[in-house]
Amino acid sequence: MSNWQKIKDYFKKQQEIILLVHEKPDGDCLGSALALGHHLREEGYQPKLFHPEPIPSTYDYLPGGEMINIYQKKELPAGRPIIAVDCADLGRILYPLSQNTSIINIDHHCSNTFFGDFNLVDASAAATGEMVFDLLKRSSYKISPATATCLYIAILADTGSFSYSNTTSKTFQTAAELLELGSDIELIRYNFFDRRPLVELLTIKHALTNLQFSAQNKIVWSALSYRELSANNLLNTDTDSVINLMRSVEGVEAAIVFRELEPFKIKISFRSQKHLDVNLLAQEFGGGGHSRAAGCSIEGNLQEITAKVMERAQASLKKSPYEGGDSSGRGN
Amino acid sequence: MSNWQKIKDYFKKQQEIILLVHEKPDGDCLGSALALGHHLREEGYQPKLFHPEPIPSTYDYLPGGEMINIYQKKELPAGRPIIAVDCADLGRILYPLSQNTSIINIDHHCSNTFFGDFNLVDASAAATGEMVFDLLKRSSYKISPATATCLYIAILADTGSFSYSNTTSKTFQTAAELLELGSDIELIRYNFFDRRPLVELLTIKHALTNLQFSAQNKIVWSALSYRELSANNLLNTDTDSVINLMRSVEGVEAAIVFRELEPFKIKISFRSQKHLDVNLLAQEFGGGGHSRAAGCSIEGNLQEITAKVMERAQASLKKSPYEGGDSSGRGN
Repeated sequence: MSNWQKIKDYFKKQQEIILLVHEKPDGDCLGSALALGHHLREEGYQPKLFHPEPIPSTYDYLPGGEMINIYQKKELPAGRPIIAVDCADLGRILYPLSQNTSIINIDHHCSNTFFGDFNLVDASAAATGEMVFDLLKRSSYKISPATATCLYIAILADTGSFSYSNTTSKTFQTAAELLELGSDIELIRYNFFDRRPLVELLTIKHALTNLQFSAQNKIVWSALSYRELSANNLLNTDTDSVINLMRSVEGVEAAIVFRELEPFKIKISFRSQKHLDVNLLAQEFGGGGHSRAAGCSIEGNLQEITAKVMERAQASLKKSPYEGGDSSGRGN
Repeated sequence: MSNWQKIKDYFKKQQEIILLVHEKPDGDCLGSALALGHHLREEGYQPKLFHPEPIPSTYDYLPGGEMINIYQKKELPAGRPIIAVDCADLGRILYPLSQNTSIINIDHHCSNTFFGDFNLVDASAAATGEMVFDLLKRSSYKISPATATCLYIAILADTGSFSYSNTTSKTFQTAAELLELGSDIELIRYNFFDRRPLVELLTIKHALTNLQFSAQNKIVWSALSYRELSANNLLNTDTDSVINLMRSVEGVEAAIVFRELEPFKIKISFRSQKHLDVNLLAQEFGGGGHSRAAGCSIEGNLQEITAKVMERAQASLKKSPYEGGDSSGRGN
């Protein structure tokens, strides 16, 4: 029996299926959830994606937007099966769950807690979208152009447009198949790559202006105060572009961005190259994520928190098998 | 007879084959030329890549570097057949050519002048590397891991890591095949994406600090004076990253970067989205390239040249079928 058949067994006789994504939804969770939504609809179900906020404009053009319901953080309609997409733990699900609700957990985070009644978790997948592609491909239904479009953006987003180390021959084959299945690459290309808000550029400018180096230039970081962010209308932009730029500098192992999004509330993003496990580092401060990309939030004074986190980051780097780009394999 | 067989007919009995690339060689011309070099070597020839300058560090890790000869701009050794790779015209070849030299011209620029004795020109190819892949695949020889690595970087570089509109299902299939043939994606990933010089980040910072908008924000541009570039050691970096960032802003049709690389010598780079033919625009100033990416050099005062080029750019944009992102198709 295919996994998709197993999942449908958990639906019992319910036609209405609830799809949930995590806070600040990204291309992978939205693309994967909407792809599942299209597929469910094509099989006669009524999928609804519940989220407390409007989805970001980076993804508001994806086919299936009519499945999205802005639904405040209260109990969900009873009895409906839930598919949690790209959510590592119950804390990522933004709603209280009632008893006797079937929960299907589809995710690729290594920190996943297997909170579902049915858990499809594969930390080796480049994206949850890659898992959903396999899941649907192995069922007997054809993947529609709308489903293919949503899966394409999921993979594109989580592989950094095929640039991260999770990109494999299989990722490219999947991308080629998705284009052949009718994925609308022009829609995605234009909206995803070429419709970036100007504030993203300005965030890059400000973060680069405040650039600092630690640990013999192996860690690069930047701190943006509430005052600077609010004065330039940069409170609601994300830092993916700038932190990836910072991490890509020759000799850099890790990049860290501190943003004071509210006075004394600091959001910290971590990225690393090869050695530093930033998931562990973020966990020290109550956060988490992947070993190469993680985050956390801390309350307090920006300068004090910056000093504290940078001290822990340097200590973690010292303990990690860091080779400093030295291909002879000597650690230091 | 395959094109590769036809090309080899032009070699006559010569074993030593000269590979030429254009000035400021990029990933496509270097990757394609080195791929041809590996293949030629595997077939028993002695290929040499002649270039007047050391190749940029962005590409100095590619297998086959021992084929590269730094050779000053004088007449090339007589009688050796020449393969010009990714060169649109004879001006791009940096050497005077002697009589009776066989010239094989392999290129994907639409402005190619068919200057060779044998011309393999396909303006529809995403990269010259895609053409070389087809060329070699249709010959009876197997593509080696070294050849595959060089072709992978060629395609990666000219498609902006699979983000530009030239990316197709075929591009992904080729990438998947190249990985299966043993392309060293880790070598490329680390060196191409994650070993970017710090000056590239600083170039982004300075260009964003000088950011300006014209034509109702449809053209974004930035001018960097000799004084600013030299004071910050930014004379030798390229502007690909920053101009692509600039072009990707919502509502922007074209991005232009002016750099005064020597006092009163201005290098101008153009990128466009969908409508403005920057090849034609660059040609007005003695340059050229592709319709979406072009460049030129002009001597004179930075401010005067900026004003003149921006005036022509705005005039060209008015004449172009620009729709301002309005999907109803109304022009303006």
